[in-house]
Amino acid sequence: MDEFARIHHWTAQRQSEDWQRQRGVVIGIGDDAAVVDTAAAADGVAEPKRLLLAVDTMVETVHFKQSTMRDEDVGYKALAANISDIAAMGGVPLHALVSVSVPPSYKPERMRRLYDGLYECAERYGVAVVGGDTTSSPQHLVVAVTVTGTVEAGRELRRSGAMPGDAVFVTGAVGMAAAGLHALLAQEERGAGCKAAEEDQAVCEAIAARCDMETAQVAALLQAHQRPSPSVRAGRLLLGRGSCHSLNDVSDGLASEAWEIAEASGLRLVLEERQLPKSGSMAAYASRVSMDPLEWMLNGGEDYALLGTMTAGAAEETRAIFHKEGIPFFIIGKTEAGSPGVELVRNDLVYAGRAAGHQDYRVELKKQGYNHFSS
Amino acid sequence: MDEFARIHHWTAQRQSEDWQRQRGVVIGIGDDAAVVDTAAAADGVAEPKRLLLAVDTMVETVHFKQSTMRDEDVGYKALAANISDIAAMGGVPLHALVSVSVPPSYKPERMRRLYDGLYECAERYGVAVVGGDTTSSPQHLVVAVTVTGTVEAGRELRRSGAMPGDAVFVTGAVGMAAAGLHALLAQEERGAGCKAAEEDQAVCEAIAARCDMETAQVAALLQAHQRPSPSVRAGRLLLGRGSCHSLNDVSDGLASEAWEIAEASGLRLVLEERQLPKSGSMAAYASRVSMDPLEWMLNGGEDYALLGTMTAGAAEETRAIFHKEGIPFFIIGKTEAGSPGVELVRNDLVYAGRAAGHQDYRVELKKQGYNHFSS
Repeated sequence: MDEFARIHHWTAQRQSEDWQRQRGVVIGIGDDAAVVDTAAAADGVAEPKRLLLAVDTMVETVHFKQSTMRDEDVGYKALAANISDIAAMGGVPLHALVSVSVPPSYKPERMRRLYDGLYECAERYGVAVVGGDTTSSPQHLVVAVTVTGTVEAGRELRRSGAMPGDAVFVTGAVGMAAAGLHALLAQEERGAGCKAAEEDQAVCEAIAARCDMETAQVAALLQAHQRPSPSVRAGRLLLGRGSCHSLNDVSDGLASEAWEIAEASGLRLVLEERQLPKSGSMAAYASRVSMDPLEWMLNGGEDYALLGTMTAGAAEETRAIFHKEGIPFFIIGKTEAGSPGVELVRNDLVYAGRAAGHQDYRVELKKQGYNHFSS
Repeated sequence: MDEFARIHHWTAQRQSEDWQRQRGVVIGIGDDAAVVDTAAAADGVAEPKRLLLAVDTMVETVHFKQSTMRDEDVGYKALAANISDIAAMGGVPLHALVSVSVPPSYKPERMRRLYDGLYECAERYGVAVVGGDTTSSPQHLVVAVTVTGTVEAGRELRRSGAMPGDAVFVTGAVGMAAAGLHALLAQEERGAGCKAAEEDQAVCEAIAARCDMETAQVAALLQAHQRPSPSVRAGRLLLGRGSCHSLNDVSDGLASEAWEIAEASGLRLVLEERQLPKSGSMAAYASRVSMDPLEWMLNGGEDYALLGTMTAGAAEETRAIFHKEGIPFFIIGKTEAGSPGVELVRNDLVYAGRAAGHQDYRVELKKQGYNHFSS
């Protein structure tokens, strides 16, 4: 098969012309460039829209390997991570372009499975795949996905709008993806990966047996790493209410993303350890393998919940509305005027002579998170 | 330096806010997604616009290595190849997103130089760099660039509009980039690369001396490979005149691109060998190294001229207008009804008994071109 035949094999008849037309697609895969009409993709409301653009890349051995993710998962997650960037601006994802650099060792079936996962994610979030590029790669698979989206002009949810006295919220549990990755890597060390779809259940059961956990608990952790859920609905609700001051998605870890808001807005974020949404599965797994769950919650990353700020009053109202919609919403701290930084309020036994006892104390959080160039 | 510091080091203060605002940029590098207003980027003409989207990837060892391209050239060409896709639709390039996967061996200075070249190309073609993603790579540099552009709705220049009886044209010489690459690889075999800017002149002179050519001739060939010129102006002129039936850019070689038009339009392209624009430098180099220049012209690729069709009358008019504008325009053949295919009319000594003499004869051209998966 030559390049064109392969691309056809991977992408043909995945999305109908009608389905793509509803998303404004005039010319999809097959010409020099895709042609889209973003006005045609609007929802009929007259409010003028702007275009959102984001790109995200996954590299074999850096972001995934055969023992941690199936080919379908790689495709799914490559697109999901991008959609999360659109969600973090309050936008609606619309189109995707896919660049794959494929090593000779990858058989066409593997790429076909990667596209299976990518199109599954596209279907779920209503994203039209409109183009791409396929090159060979000397050794490792690289997948770079670009997405477009639309957002109501002037209402984009930026990182930079936080105000002193805001409540800090997050729209989902943190640390689960990191725990899932830890479990997969530990399993690999024991010589058992999850190379094929049919082995997934076996891997879950093996980890569950080893850690004395329920299989469903382990499955939730693996899923968090392999098939993250971008928070598009949460982002749209936040934009619609108009009270959100700043927003970010938790791709690089809670501490790192909080730092980004702090620096972009010029203030401090003070998070309460006790308020952080801790998944029971994650905590159970951490305890079984003697890891610190707080480390995963702060620096694990790839959770793709939304982190943001709004006034305390608005946060209480929003929490009620989110709960009615079945979307998690946790108030985890507040903002303070001051030079940019992030602090965590811990509560531990503090020795201070006779006054020994549980006390609140603050620790500075570093920007460490998941950083590809940190040494 | 952490990831954020590096990205800042590569991209900060490259393009002013004003300059970006003229291209519709509302939020550039630094948030989850870029926000652009394509209406604001329009030229004031009321004609409704559509959005163009294209992605192109360059992989170290597949598309370039240190002996064939300086870091600046890699950045320049990664963007130029994308701009060419916008040109081939008749559009105006507007924005770029840059994904780089960087091996540990790449020092920040090398990436800085890559961005020097990329921004030089962006400046030349008026493209605002609005976002990107940086990841590490186990061994080889991968650069994936996505560009947006705008085009007047309904006037996009597709591959599929060719009509039987059209003239086939090309807007520049073909085969020069392939000759330049050949010269660089031959020079590498002799143990001399072009690793640093200051060596460029030396490499040119060494090749010129070896092949008994002028240094300027060699420089033109190397430039064609290292710093291609996308044909934006030609594409806009073609769209403006409204007579162009089909259009493609010569990224994968003339034969391959002609095949794409033939298949998309459902007809045959018949090219005349004598009419193909043959560069004197390319022909001289081919003769010095005993290579067939026709092979480079048909299958070399990366020339980034535009190949298209229009009626014979319109082609004569367009040639006159292009020449007035100083843009090459060569009529190189015609289209014929029939099952999709590409033929070349050659003229050679044909032996047929007493009737031996120069005669025209047709050969079928294969789709071979530059194809990353061809075996």
